[in-house]
Amino acid sequence: MLYYLFNYLNGLFDLPGAGMVNSISFRAAMAIIFSLIIATLYGKKIILYIQAKQVGETVRDLGLEGQNQKAGTPTMGGVIIILATVLPVLLFAKLENIYVILLLITTFWMGTIGFIDDYIKVFKKDKEGLKGRFKIVGQVVLGLIVGGMLYFNEDVTIKEKVQYSTEQLSEFKAQGITPPIFKEEHKSLKTTIPFVKGNEFSYKSLISWMGDGAEDYAWLIFIPIVIFIITAVSNGANLTDGIDGLAAGSSAIMGITLAILAWVSGNIIFADYLNIMYIPHSGEITIFIAAFIGALVGFLWFNAYPAQVFMGDTGSLTIGGIIAVIAIIIRKEMLIPIISGVFLAENLSVVIQVAYFKYTKNKYGEGKRVFLMAPLHHHYQKKNYHESKIVIRFWIIGIMLAVVSVVTLKVR
Amino acid sequence: MLYYLFNYLNGLFDLPGAGMVNSISFRAAMAIIFSLIIATLYGKKIILYIQAKQVGETVRDLGLEGQNQKAGTPTMGGVIIILATVLPVLLFAKLENIYVILLLITTFWMGTIGFIDDYIKVFKKDKEGLKGRFKIVGQVVLGLIVGGMLYFNEDVTIKEKVQYSTEQLSEFKAQGITPPIFKEEHKSLKTTIPFVKGNEFSYKSLISWMGDGAEDYAWLIFIPIVIFIITAVSNGANLTDGIDGLAAGSSAIMGITLAILAWVSGNIIFADYLNIMYIPHSGEITIFIAAFIGALVGFLWFNAYPAQVFMGDTGSLTIGGIIAVIAIIIRKEMLIPIISGVFLAENLSVVIQVAYFKYTKNKYGEGKRVFLMAPLHHHYQKKNYHESKIVIRFWIIGIMLAVVSVVTLKVR
Repeated sequence: MLYYLFNYLNGLFDLPGAGMVNSISFRAAMAIIFSLIIATLYGKKIILYIQAKQVGETVRDLGLEGQNQKAGTPTMGGVIIILATVLPVLLFAKLENIYVILLLITTFWMGTIGFIDDYIKVFKKDKEGLKGRFKIVGQVVLGLIVGGMLYFNEDVTIKEKVQYSTEQLSEFKAQGITPPIFKEEHKSLKTTIPFVKGNEFSYKSLISWMGDGAEDYAWLIFIPIVIFIITAVSNGANLTDGIDGLAAGSSAIMGITLAILAWVSGNIIFADYLNIMYIPHSGEITIFIAAFIGALVGFLWFNAYPAQVFMGDTGSLTIGGIIAVIAIIIRKEMLIPIISGVFLAENLSVVIQVAYFKYTKNKYGEGKRVFLMAPLHHHYQKKNYHESKIVIRFWIIGIMLAVVSVVTLKVR
Repeated sequence: MLYYLFNYLNGLFDLPGAGMVNSISFRAAMAIIFSLIIATLYGKKIILYIQAKQVGETVRDLGLEGQNQKAGTPTMGGVIIILATVLPVLLFAKLENIYVILLLITTFWMGTIGFIDDYIKVFKKDKEGLKGRFKIVGQVVLGLIVGGMLYFNEDVTIKEKVQYSTEQLSEFKAQGITPPIFKEEHKSLKTTIPFVKGNEFSYKSLISWMGDGAEDYAWLIFIPIVIFIITAVSNGANLTDGIDGLAAGSSAIMGITLAILAWVSGNIIFADYLNIMYIPHSGEITIFIAAFIGALVGFLWFNAYPAQVFMGDTGSLTIGGIIAVIAIIIRKEMLIPIISGVFLAENLSVVIQVAYFKYTKNKYGEGKRVFLMAPLHHHYQKKNYHESKIVIRFWIIGIMLAVVSVVTLKVR
């Protein structure tokens, strides 16, 4: 809203620095500074308030050393992340931007589901929290909203680079014409995939076997994919949030990766240089992502080992949803297994553990385990690695995955 | 050297991907991937080798809880950082580049001083290590080499943006001329300073009062400044290296900041956009910095709390020297108090503590202290903050300072 105020005053008085204020990089910088300040300065007050309201989430008894000292630590710290993300966005982003709107909807929606879940756990003393199927219904509905808006909204477009043959190029040259680099802005279900020529894939191709009229039904493919990605990533974030600082730090690293990808996809010069599609209006979400990174890093101030607050499902479901939706908006969702590799590993460890246990129980009458404990970070805790060491090593793996995801842009 | 091999083969066979291999961003990505692999995969072997050779540095007895368990942890882990930085640089950078040469000299020189210091501590069982004055002589000599090379080498130049008046611009327009954006490449003692108009400052201006011939003696100002910066930063890194992961993590964050600054200063499009001087050939050090960041993050794999290895002076003096020289090369050394604010705070805490103690002792006969203990991180340890929490909070402050340093480019 500061952005609108500035431009309103600029219209009246012709203020200096108008170019700077309108630039995305400047507003993103302001957003990250504000979110860091909000999270670190007001975090303490919010924690004290939460602590006064709740006696602390009952910690699941895992038989891990030093676990009991965690009883009494307040949860629902996710509200710090949400406030420190949303407030700077409201101040500095263009709020009519379709992608910013989508991300704000995601934040409120997932934040509400997570909050209800935490509320039931803490105040109803029901360790299970919100029933699993309600959580999934919530995630599916968000997928429907996000997928539907992306599919039908007229502002959601891309510009692809034109691929000229050598003959075409020499013909242009002969006629003294500079050929256009990008095609006209148009709606499309194309997404970026790594390692293949052209780096593109259209969801429409999945139903092209249905014949000529099939194009009209491409949402039958697109929307379920969106639902799947949102559910998988927010569930992954939820599982990852098991030891101090793990989910917040890993998500901050993913945020930085997505910020780089969003910035280059929303900047026509870079999109050209990197040979990726240009996504009009998407540069604006860099401001959202900047605030999101600042909020996570700021939250870590209190969440680092030994934690003074947990994010709860209020935090983990929300950050998972945000990460998924950002990736979908900038059409890099096929990179999610790399970008969010830490979440994937945590997800898979649970799936493998449960599946193998059931399989061996059916076959041999006795359930066996692959990991000492799932999700994965507990496996290392059982192996007596210090919580702090596990977290930093998972972060380092996150950094490696971030480097790999960014490099995929250049490698083909 | 892979870079030269590729270009040699390309000359013979016209290989595909030559443009990509020559691009700085691609080689920087390869450098960081290689350094991460070297540090994490070979780090363990190096640690075991060091451990076999030494019984572990005698830990200074500070009366801190849990400190004794640190006895036996091997030191000199800095060799991991040095190897993981230098090897990727040798593989992927242009080794005839003056700035790459300067950074390699810095690494070997400071690495050697640090190694001698650690060697005396560990094997001669002399806790003091290398006498303080030898360390300072080493730092001063490096400052002389770096300052001298930057001052006299013909490859060390800048291109400044031309500042046109509105009249000049309209005259160009009338004549249908596109005016040049940058001046000719030339030698200069200008540096970038934040917050002022023009963002520039010339060291020559400090001696202009000496009259017309003074320009020839500008090195009398420049070289002492270089010596001071190198000594201050490497000493700061040395003091910061007191608790697990603090120096490595903080330096990695500074490395990222410097990578951004180096990349924009060495890229003519960005230098134009940001209104900063363009420094020809300096883009190449992005590859060095990428390897440096990967080496530090990779080292953290073993150095994170609880540490399996310490970097020793081999590490801390070297990373301090590298950070100082990078900042000087890209003429952002006046930003060092912000970029390396964590080092500055640690330095200042010691200076303040000692000065106040001496002052009160002289005045009241009894020495008083400002901090419970210096350097600063020990103050918080005495206040019973967990080592792990102190480290992550110092990192977060480092991230905040990084954001501020990058933002200074845009604010004036």
